[in-house]
Amino acid sequence: MTSPAPLQQQSSRQPLTDALETVLAALRTRLGERLSTARPVREQHGQDASYLPPHPPDAVAFPENADEVAFILSTCHAHRVPVIAFGTGSSCEGHVAALNGGICLDTSRMNAIGPVSPADMTCVVEPGVTRKMLNAHLRDTGLFFPVDPGADASIGGMISTRASGTNAVRYGTMKDHVVSLDVVLADGTRLRTASAARKSSAGYNLTQMFVGAEGTLGVIVSATIRLHPIPEATETALIAFPSSSAAIDCAIAIMGSGLPIARIEYLDDVQIAAVEAYSKLGLTIGDTLILECAGDPQTVARQMTWIIEIAGDFEPLDVKTAQSPEDRARIWQARHDAWWAAIALRPGAKGIPTDSCVPVSRMAEAIALARSDCAELGVTAPICGHVGDGNFHLCVVFDPDNAQEKANVDELLARLSRRAIALGGTITGEHGIGYGKRGYLVEEYGSAGIRAMAAIKRALDPRDILNPGKIIEASDALPFT
Amino acid sequence: MTSPAPLQQQSSRQPLTDALETVLAALRTRLGERLSTARPVREQHGQDASYLPPHPPDAVAFPENADEVAFILSTCHAHRVPVIAFGTGSSCEGHVAALNGGICLDTSRMNAIGPVSPADMTCVVEPGVTRKMLNAHLRDTGLFFPVDPGADASIGGMISTRASGTNAVRYGTMKDHVVSLDVVLADGTRLRTASAARKSSAGYNLTQMFVGAEGTLGVIVSATIRLHPIPEATETALIAFPSSSAAIDCAIAIMGSGLPIARIEYLDDVQIAAVEAYSKLGLTIGDTLILECAGDPQTVARQMTWIIEIAGDFEPLDVKTAQSPEDRARIWQARHDAWWAAIALRPGAKGIPTDSCVPVSRMAEAIALARSDCAELGVTAPICGHVGDGNFHLCVVFDPDNAQEKANVDELLARLSRRAIALGGTITGEHGIGYGKRGYLVEEYGSAGIRAMAAIKRALDPRDILNPGKIIEASDALPFT
Repeated sequence: MTSPAPLQQQSSRQPLTDALETVLAALRTRLGERLSTARPVREQHGQDASYLPPHPPDAVAFPENADEVAFILSTCHAHRVPVIAFGTGSSCEGHVAALNGGICLDTSRMNAIGPVSPADMTCVVEPGVTRKMLNAHLRDTGLFFPVDPGADASIGGMISTRASGTNAVRYGTMKDHVVSLDVVLADGTRLRTASAARKSSAGYNLTQMFVGAEGTLGVIVSATIRLHPIPEATETALIAFPSSSAAIDCAIAIMGSGLPIARIEYLDDVQIAAVEAYSKLGLTIGDTLILECAGDPQTVARQMTWIIEIAGDFEPLDVKTAQSPEDRARIWQARHDAWWAAIALRPGAKGIPTDSCVPVSRMAEAIALARSDCAELGVTAPICGHVGDGNFHLCVVFDPDNAQEKANVDELLARLSRRAIALGGTITGEHGIGYGKRGYLVEEYGSAGIRAMAAIKRALDPRDILNPGKIIEASDALPFT
Repeated sequence: MTSPAPLQQQSSRQPLTDALETVLAALRTRLGERLSTARPVREQHGQDASYLPPHPPDAVAFPENADEVAFILSTCHAHRVPVIAFGTGSSCEGHVAALNGGICLDTSRMNAIGPVSPADMTCVVEPGVTRKMLNAHLRDTGLFFPVDPGADASIGGMISTRASGTNAVRYGTMKDHVVSLDVVLADGTRLRTASAARKSSAGYNLTQMFVGAEGTLGVIVSATIRLHPIPEATETALIAFPSSSAAIDCAIAIMGSGLPIARIEYLDDVQIAAVEAYSKLGLTIGDTLILECAGDPQTVARQMTWIIEIAGDFEPLDVKTAQSPEDRARIWQARHDAWWAAIALRPGAKGIPTDSCVPVSRMAEAIALARSDCAELGVTAPICGHVGDGNFHLCVVFDPDNAQEKANVDELLARLSRRAIALGGTITGEHGIGYGKRGYLVEEYGSAGIRAMAAIKRALDPRDILNPGKIIEASDALPFT
């Protein structure tokens, strides 16, 4: 099995010299020093957290408001110059790579946080606000923003990749946290996708069209975000099991019981061994669940008792519980250190945090097969995941200078994507497509899905200037007639 | 203030005779007696639960599977004949009216329920399955489907109007209950919108494009639906308050406390008086909340105690609680009888169940202004609503043969839609646009939103054959270039 051919040849660079010069001159006039063509700035903006090759843009613009974004887009649209929106660069599939050059639109200076509405449990934010900035701002309101991908990503980026994380099983993903968006379309048109009401049946769901669109349909300039009350009490349990299937079946039993679990994370025994070697937390080596309940103290305590009772049916090797913030942080450290612990398994090695998602009922099978693939291909790849959603990550650790290893890693990644599809799942639960997974998108959706996505792209960005080469291109499929 | 002009003249009927004859002949060959041109059948399919004038289709087709739906669509597409999907006809804004004639595609024979997956908490259903059929089917599984618009609507129709109801505050609306859809597009192309995984970041959200699209972008032939564990215990409270604002402020305080409330419904004093006159339940006349908690018995009991404690701050006139199914049903009867009780206020009168939704923080204001409009215009219209979502309904009771009354009702409806927009809300929270609210859609979204919706419509249904005249038409706005 091999990786699929790219849908379209990734050309090294379009000949945009004249158009580009015109655009740069116009942007320089409007933005002054907030337009940079310095090599280090460009290089920093051409690379994300993935192991894909960097593609620096021709220039980086730092707009400070929606009017400047509209100016950048209308100028680039007129001259057919690509625009790549940039948050913090923590994406994992090459989302920010300037494959055809063009202007990187860095949103970091658009970081205002609007008034919080406690009655509506919402807040308006600009796209460059990061999730930690937002939660720091909310500290005294009794509310919080729960979506937590590992990185301190920008809200604009999290919306654009439909990000999630450990809290998704209770609170949902980014798609559930966007009430409405202000977007600038390719030609500079300003669009508000929805009202501030919590629900609506008024026409097409424009909001969800931009959530997960990776900046290919418009640039988000403001978002009304849903918040939640901070729970009064939280308890955490770490339970080690004798096998992967015992851990996952236990997770399914807990969710099926109707217990309103707040977090339910899985780490396989390879990952736990790596964390223990790295962090010396005194962990029992075994396939492990970290579970959390939140709410009023009495309810939480009773729910935790039930969880441990249910877990008892799956012959746990070890059960640890924690109530205090310090003790809970010690348990969560096992999860937070997972990535660094994996990388540390092989000094000098690189890591790929790959992502797929299957129906919960197929997760034990998906993980067992991923593990046997790793064994067969000789690839080291600890597994952790958001088992409540069927979403799991392999942290693939390898030596990029070893061609055979690289080939084996590519084969592993191909198998993971194709198996997710074969098991009724998706090639990515929360990282997105970028350009790293474009080839598999057609395998997941088939030609009808690709035609529908290309039709939408063509309808809203007919000149293909918005983050070209990511997800889909206007030219990827014939229009419906 | 007057109703807006329709976006486009609703022509009395396109001259489709030749094309229609060709289509009817082809469909008759394939469907036999499952194609009907009988007048009573056509008339039944041209009218929904709204008070809009009926528009019967030229024929009604009763397909039994997706292949037949694809045949109907590809045939109608070839000859540019309209196709209007039909569930149970319980929509409220003329969604099923055949404004330009054409073929009504009645999905009632596509009512298979696939296997339930307890681990995934999902079930595959055909579009003609109604919510009560589904819950009857689920009876022994420990799972249930919570979305409950008043009527026993079809799942396909509920998806297509983005329906919700009393459970939305806890479980969300239809948009939160669709994992993936099988859709037939205008030209007969089959499309699967997503995998069976609980979440995905793989490309554009095709699923949400069809949720709420009112059959204007494709016809749903199968849906994977999310289910939930049936709670062990449920308690209900009915609390009467001295004013509308006291009731709504209490609702906001309860939601802000983080209590996981299951249902929270509002009925104004006019509505409660109507119900009491109709059903003799011994209700105290006052602005009333019906609240429900669900979960394990101990937690539910404690949550109910807190709710009543919080309500104490708002000087309640009366508090009733109920644990047993019989006592709870007696409380809910007040809500279920609301519509019939309103109509009964004026024997021989007709009712319009109108719908709007504002941010929760503006709901008290929206309701107060709606009530003063009713007083000013002399219109009788009890109010009830899903206060947890900011969504409320006026049941407008009037004599359709009285021109002045009809004019006052039109004025009231115009004010309600425009005020919802002015308060940061939407013209419909759960009923949809149909053709009854098309004129207000542009007021809510502005020209950019209309252009974006028309661009999507054009991309997927360029011949405008799918439920033409509802929500948007391909010709409503210029394309992006």
